[in-house]
Amino acid sequence: MSVTAAKGFTAAGIAAGIKENGNPDLALVVNNGPRLAAAGVFTSNRVKAAPVLWSEQVLKGGLVSAVVLNSGGANACTGPQGFQDTHATAEKAAEVLGHNAGEVAVCSTGLIGVRLPMDRLLPGIEKAAEALSAHGGEKAAIAIKTTDTVHKTAVAEGDGWVVGGMAKGAGMLAPGLATMLVVLTTDADVDGAVLDRALRDATRTTFDRIDSDGCMSTNDTVLLLASGASGVAPDEAEFAEAVRTVCADLARQLIGDAEGASKDIRIEVVGAATEDDAVEVGRTIARNNLLKCAVHGEDPNWGRVLSAIGTTSAVFDPDRLNVAINGVWVCKNGSVGEDRDLVDMRYREVRITADLAAGDASAVVWTNDLTADYVHENSAYSS
Amino acid sequence: MSVTAAKGFTAAGIAAGIKENGNPDLALVVNNGPRLAAAGVFTSNRVKAAPVLWSEQVLKGGLVSAVVLNSGGANACTGPQGFQDTHATAEKAAEVLGHNAGEVAVCSTGLIGVRLPMDRLLPGIEKAAEALSAHGGEKAAIAIKTTDTVHKTAVAEGDGWVVGGMAKGAGMLAPGLATMLVVLTTDADVDGAVLDRALRDATRTTFDRIDSDGCMSTNDTVLLLASGASGVAPDEAEFAEAVRTVCADLARQLIGDAEGASKDIRIEVVGAATEDDAVEVGRTIARNNLLKCAVHGEDPNWGRVLSAIGTTSAVFDPDRLNVAINGVWVCKNGSVGEDRDLVDMRYREVRITADLAAGDASAVVWTNDLTADYVHENSAYSS
Repeated sequence: MSVTAAKGFTAAGIAAGIKENGNPDLALVVNNGPRLAAAGVFTSNRVKAAPVLWSEQVLKGGLVSAVVLNSGGANACTGPQGFQDTHATAEKAAEVLGHNAGEVAVCSTGLIGVRLPMDRLLPGIEKAAEALSAHGGEKAAIAIKTTDTVHKTAVAEGDGWVVGGMAKGAGMLAPGLATMLVVLTTDADVDGAVLDRALRDATRTTFDRIDSDGCMSTNDTVLLLASGASGVAPDEAEFAEAVRTVCADLARQLIGDAEGASKDIRIEVVGAATEDDAVEVGRTIARNNLLKCAVHGEDPNWGRVLSAIGTTSAVFDPDRLNVAINGVWVCKNGSVGEDRDLVDMRYREVRITADLAAGDASAVVWTNDLTADYVHENSAYSS
Repeated sequence: MSVTAAKGFTAAGIAAGIKENGNPDLALVVNNGPRLAAAGVFTSNRVKAAPVLWSEQVLKGGLVSAVVLNSGGANACTGPQGFQDTHATAEKAAEVLGHNAGEVAVCSTGLIGVRLPMDRLLPGIEKAAEALSAHGGEKAAIAIKTTDTVHKTAVAEGDGWVVGGMAKGAGMLAPGLATMLVVLTTDADVDGAVLDRALRDATRTTFDRIDSDGCMSTNDTVLLLASGASGVAPDEAEFAEAVRTVCADLARQLIGDAEGASKDIRIEVVGAATEDDAVEVGRTIARNNLLKCAVHGEDPNWGRVLSAIGTTSAVFDPDRLNVAINGVWVCKNGSVGEDRDLVDMRYREVRITADLAAGDASAVVWTNDLTADYVHENSAYSS
């Protein structure tokens, strides 16, 4: 269903020849209105790819009529020429679609530091425009894959309106957004301010809380476009919840397909003095390579959880910390708790609960284990 | 030569039966004076092992007559009982040596969250005391090994005085000190204030700038003991330089023996606005798993260096960043530089230079590559 689940949108995914292996590598998503409202969030990395710099400007205008997305090249660290390439991409799409280039967002993903083959990308846009269809959402989702093993889509339905979306991302997943491109669409009749609030609120607790490998990308972009084609103006809270549901669904799919991972680790921090403390502790645990190796080895090594917590600035007393792994409280009051042999870690999903015993705030952060396959994939693949 | 290179010190290393495999696991270092001056630095992890809490108190008195070190158990996250075990260790050593327990430092390394076998450790102290020798430095260095493949010692000689030392550490190496125990000794006639200044200054630019895997330990301890037995009071700057030389030598040996590593990576950040900026950028690059995988694969992936720099708060303009790998400036002005095929990464030592083009400050941080062997060692070994 993807980005064409909502009325008013067409999409396409084609092979433009950007990827040398001939796989699909160019997607186009078009908002046919009547509204062209949009909101976006972007990587907080200070080294931003050209398409991020471009799309940030487009979003300032509040209107997005189309999004061009390519895999096979990130167009990051490509200097002024790279920015010109992004500009030319938007201009080409505007020309083909009869739109305004200032309302065309661009997203790229793939290798950093290499120019895009514009002699293939620009003709590809014409080809994609010809392939646009109200059923093109799946093909668009497939065309943005890089090392993803599956394409990712999600849909939430309201009363007479829909929020749908697609995502790509498999490595470089970290707070501040991951090597992750996400396009969400809705036919709800909502304005840019509502979209912006819903999107920021949703990403804060979904995409910003997955951290596959602690590495933040130069290209992360999440866009939410509204066509208004349903004619229904939903309750704002209900709409925000639908956006959050789709984001959470896609975020979970990203973790489930992280490069080389064999475990998805759900880290819930409870008993924190503040939500910020809970998030800091969750992220720090999520980034501890030794713990990630232990989870890979199905070793309930709570000592590594404690030594990670100890590096944070969160409020806690070391002698009151409690840690459960898959429901077994293996650490109580900062020391040995229940028998670690009771912990069953055979399944892909592993749940770690860290109780700071310092308040009522909590947060959930997702990560993956660290595996030889991760090392292999990222030492052999220049990305 | 290790800790007995300096006059006035005796040491021993024996097998007390703490390690199940029967390898040496208990070391004793004794300062026979005439001075008992000492300085120490400890992990900044807020979850501190019992021996760290104990030894911090001992160091506040400024006098250390002996150090008991054990491998085979970290005595971390062991609650009040663990602290009593450390206390009993110091009491036992004091009794056997005729010292004051308040002047006996204790260091432990090994598995977190497990009590030490005191029924073996305490008799081991008697055995170690009987084995004390002015030539026992090597045996002491061997007895503190955990996953270390080699023992580490270093010596620097002044005019009539010596600084020597031993270190252990192979994983959990990160700023704030690593799973690292270091004992340095000198026969120079210097007081505690001189020792403290020399040690803090030396660790700041040596042990605090090695970051094998971003994981900070609960047990890190670096002690510097002075016997005054040479009768020579050296120039303070000369003495400080000797301490720094020994620390740098040991730190380099720790990186060279890091768990599972196949490359030692020297990250030099130049052109920084401040030294703090240089260190922040160096550490951030050192902790980037994707880059560490790329180095393992001998892939000069400068894009991963830039995306790591982009996550810092250092002063820089993305369009002025330059990166060299083994002397080849593969990134210039934030974009493609010299041909990456010119980079030869076959050797164990890899040099990455990041030029922030924002000032004159610089810093060097060392790390290792990320390998399947690291994953294997840390998923199979509960530490």
